[in-house]
Amino acid sequence: MLIVVALGGNALQPKESRGYPEEQWAAVRKAARALAEIVREGFEIVITHGNGPQVGYLLEAMESMPLKKPRQTLDLAVAMTQGWLGFLIAHSLEEELARLGVAKRAAVIPTRVLVSLDDPEFLNPSKPVGGYYGREEAEVLSKTLGWIFKEDPRGDYRRVVPSPRPLKILETPILKSLLEENIVPIAAGGGGIPVASVEGTLKPVEAVIDKDLASSLLAVELDADMLAILTDVPGVALNYHTPKRLWLRRVKARELKKYYERGEFPPGSMGPKVLAAIEFVEKTGRKASIGLLEEALKVVKGDSGTLIEA
Amino acid sequence: MLIVVALGGNALQPKESRGYPEEQWAAVRKAARALAEIVREGFEIVITHGNGPQVGYLLEAMESMPLKKPRQTLDLAVAMTQGWLGFLIAHSLEEELARLGVAKRAAVIPTRVLVSLDDPEFLNPSKPVGGYYGREEAEVLSKTLGWIFKEDPRGDYRRVVPSPRPLKILETPILKSLLEENIVPIAAGGGGIPVASVEGTLKPVEAVIDKDLASSLLAVELDADMLAILTDVPGVALNYHTPKRLWLRRVKARELKKYYERGEFPPGSMGPKVLAAIEFVEKTGRKASIGLLEEALKVVKGDSGTLIEA
Repeated sequence: MLIVVALGGNALQPKESRGYPEEQWAAVRKAARALAEIVREGFEIVITHGNGPQVGYLLEAMESMPLKKPRQTLDLAVAMTQGWLGFLIAHSLEEELARLGVAKRAAVIPTRVLVSLDDPEFLNPSKPVGGYYGREEAEVLSKTLGWIFKEDPRGDYRRVVPSPRPLKILETPILKSLLEENIVPIAAGGGGIPVASVEGTLKPVEAVIDKDLASSLLAVELDADMLAILTDVPGVALNYHTPKRLWLRRVKARELKKYYERGEFPPGSMGPKVLAAIEFVEKTGRKASIGLLEEALKVVKGDSGTLIEA
Repeated sequence: MLIVVALGGNALQPKESRGYPEEQWAAVRKAARALAEIVREGFEIVITHGNGPQVGYLLEAMESMPLKKPRQTLDLAVAMTQGWLGFLIAHSLEEELARLGVAKRAAVIPTRVLVSLDDPEFLNPSKPVGGYYGREEAEVLSKTLGWIFKEDPRGDYRRVVPSPRPLKILETPILKSLLEENIVPIAAGGGGIPVASVEGTLKPVEAVIDKDLASSLLAVELDADMLAILTDVPGVALNYHTPKRLWLRRVKARELKKYYERGEFPPGSMGPKVLAAIEFVEKTGRKASIGLLEEALKVVKGDSGTLIEA
């Protein structure tokens, strides 16, 4: 049984963490322990992960340099986080597997994802990235680097980039080869490096792909038996921010879709997770689950979290 | 015939370049074109690459942030450059292969390399990394982050880290699997992420491994038929900085070793390349070549550059 396991950004950098290397290792070790248990039970897994705090950190670092220094584009920054987090996860997972006596290797595959320049997000970018700027600074950066700014709820200005839908994972054949060789692939970090077809060739684009939607697509392409989205909440709930909070234990995809469409789930957090799960179940007829990282094994067995069925 | 092809840092960021993304793409596209020609001729290749300018850039970016922000460790920075440059190379190579009608994929493998904490470099670190600091700043960083500083020939202070010898490439089995699947692996970027055995587990360490020595070791481990070191000079020369410069076209490893030992080749540039070639030839009895990236195909055929034989 093959499961695509998507790790939330918080799994790799908890909210209380400031992003120091030792904090990252501790968080990733915890995640690796949970994942190693799944592997020990005999499940085949492909690991995907978010990169929000890390790509934000790199953009901030580059933006701290004098303006005459180059800023690397967002596609390159995503590629950097894939190497960075992929190394953390692969190294920790192999350590935990060895501890459990499982002879299995992990391999990081920096991954590109096809998007379309016709995606409406390219006309109206929605995803804020990087630091906060005053109006004048924003105008300078807009002129020199072509960045698009929007006023942030916090008052300052922030760069926004498109968040287009993922259409195809370019490295899927390589991931299949690794699975055949009994290796655990770590892929599609941060939703993948976006590339688009421009006059017959693939060009990298400055955009951010939602990691849950990319994971869902990857699970379809790999013909996976399950999509498991592991995060820091115990599952999907209705009326989340009210005293009438109701946790869903098992739910049909079409029912969950109704909740999604009436706006039960916030866009930045549970929304894309729910959508990713619905899409996987609708396309494949198989199951998806959303639950706590610490209870990963229970979540993939349907004994914890929310199980989404056809 | 399997060749490990090592790309110099200059191949990815020419000296006249300031490090802008468009300059990187142009340089890597040129390299990819040369490599694609080798693949079209039917050679199997594994690509390794330097990361000097890029890891320097990332360290500088992180060091530009206020001191209360975390600085990521050097092992993580190397992992970032493996994702970054690996993506550039893989994407460009696939594009060039497609142009030549070769149906072959490339895959980036972030790679760890075993080193020993008993390496003398850990007692006396030799490799300068990151930016230049005044004495006071250096003292602050030394106290807060534990960095070791040495006075630089330029007058300021610079952080130094160990440059230990590579002992084992941890991802070799994965690279073998990829080769069996007809995929071109890109590996050991920047010499690899150094890890050392500490009380039975592997721990990442802050060090820099010479990419040519790591490539040589990888070529031995992969049982490669040749190690080809591609750079921006046309081969190995004696009396390089004198009017009596003499290019070597074919040379026995033991003869080259004599030149090496009498100090013909500078430590930072041709020295490690020559040493890497000698080691590969001595361990395997096979051939190594050092030459111009633009003439890559001729170099691997022994028709350009310097051919080192047993």
